[in-house]
Amino acid sequence: MSKTTSGTLFGVGLGPGDPELMTLKAARVLRTAPVVAHFRKAGRSGHARTIADAHIRADVIEAAFEYPVTTEVDFREDGYVSAIRDFYSTSAAAISAHLQSGRDVALLCEGDPFFYGSFLHMYDRIKGSHPVMVIPGITGMSGCWTAAQAPITYGDDVMTVLPGTLGKDDLAKHIKETDAAVIMKVGHNIAKIKEALRVAGRFDDAIYVERGTMPGERVARLADLGECAAPYFSIILLPGGRGRRIA
Amino acid sequence: MSKTTSGTLFGVGLGPGDPELMTLKAARVLRTAPVVAHFRKAGRSGHARTIADAHIRADVIEAAFEYPVTTEVDFREDGYVSAIRDFYSTSAAAISAHLQSGRDVALLCEGDPFFYGSFLHMYDRIKGSHPVMVIPGITGMSGCWTAAQAPITYGDDVMTVLPGTLGKDDLAKHIKETDAAVIMKVGHNIAKIKEALRVAGRFDDAIYVERGTMPGERVARLADLGECAAPYFSIILLPGGRGRRIA
Repeated sequence: MSKTTSGTLFGVGLGPGDPELMTLKAARVLRTAPVVAHFRKAGRSGHARTIADAHIRADVIEAAFEYPVTTEVDFREDGYVSAIRDFYSTSAAAISAHLQSGRDVALLCEGDPFFYGSFLHMYDRIKGSHPVMVIPGITGMSGCWTAAQAPITYGDDVMTVLPGTLGKDDLAKHIKETDAAVIMKVGHNIAKIKEALRVAGRFDDAIYVERGTMPGERVARLADLGECAAPYFSIILLPGGRGRRIA
Repeated sequence: MSKTTSGTLFGVGLGPGDPELMTLKAARVLRTAPVVAHFRKAGRSGHARTIADAHIRADVIEAAFEYPVTTEVDFREDGYVSAIRDFYSTSAAAISAHLQSGRDVALLCEGDPFFYGSFLHMYDRIKGSHPVMVIPGITGMSGCWTAAQAPITYGDDVMTVLPGTLGKDDLAKHIKETDAAVIMKVGHNIAKIKEALRVAGRFDDAIYVERGTMPGERVARLADLGECAAPYFSIILLPGGRGRRIA
């Protein structure tokens, strides 16, 4: 009886959005993997899939996993937790079936696979049973500070990455204690984030970036933004520079 | 009298060290730029130059700028500040001369050009006079957490990037208040960093990474490292995971 060698799960970091900001390594793995998997919102073609498009072979097996709920829901709500946990387990089982049959799977990841994101839930479920290789990618935040032409850290700067889901006081405290900050998951948290920036005395330094490095990219001073709604994946940047002394 | 159109300065992010972790865009710019410039330690071939090697044309004009002092010197010392400021001004003048003559210059940057590093000193000096385009790269820290197979942030984690040059109390305070941390510029600061991690109660979680994604890569629990000296560009990681609740 022959034993099939397990396939490898590749967590393929695709970078911040511009397809040319993919690495040579990611492009190589996409050209050779027999299975390409990705997460997407229900009814959408999927961000990650769009970034990778030019490198995906016509004869590839595709697996698209559709989120059961919107990412705008606070993940501490019980219903969300249970629905998304089932979703991740089902997705991991589908990936494992391919690996079990000896097929490598390239799982498309926006940004960097080990920096937030859905890949981690697959990684934690699969790494004990099958080989996993991670290909790092340029983070969304790096794409945003490049798009904003805003160097984020100089010299001895401290940089803090904050989810916009934190409470106002927590946000303000962290902002006060850092030189540079990146605030993620802006979405419906924007009014609270603005307030925290005002409390910390950094509101006027803040830069708002939407769809960094992608079509429809938008960069504005937060102070000039007005009261419009922000998409969930927009980012607010507070550039550093205290450590710029030798420049 | 004809007026020469200025060349463009490209800040080319090369990623964390593995040449295959360069972006498609970086590789394209390296193939076409008539001038390639880079910083290096005196008498060394230069890290950035090594990463980019396969993409540099035989007929390119090369400009290597050699640091006048070691990066291990504390940058707050007066002699260092004055020597390095002159060095950056001279380097920027050399780059500007090429741009003035209409030649594009690709300035090689380890990691990401807008995340710490020498490029910023060129950017600040040149951006007012010539077009500058920045190509983001994978940061060294991202290469390190990938090498360590250590997802750095989940869900709602706060991540703090700390230069090892900070004082012990400052380090300990930041570490206490964050979920995930990356401590850069370890070098001769390692004993102080260990102490700060102990004070913050996170010493046992810490991972030491040297030359992440490069030949000679070394990953170890900090607790297992012993008393050996650490190179300046090694990194210490504190992975997050408090936000892992839905996994």
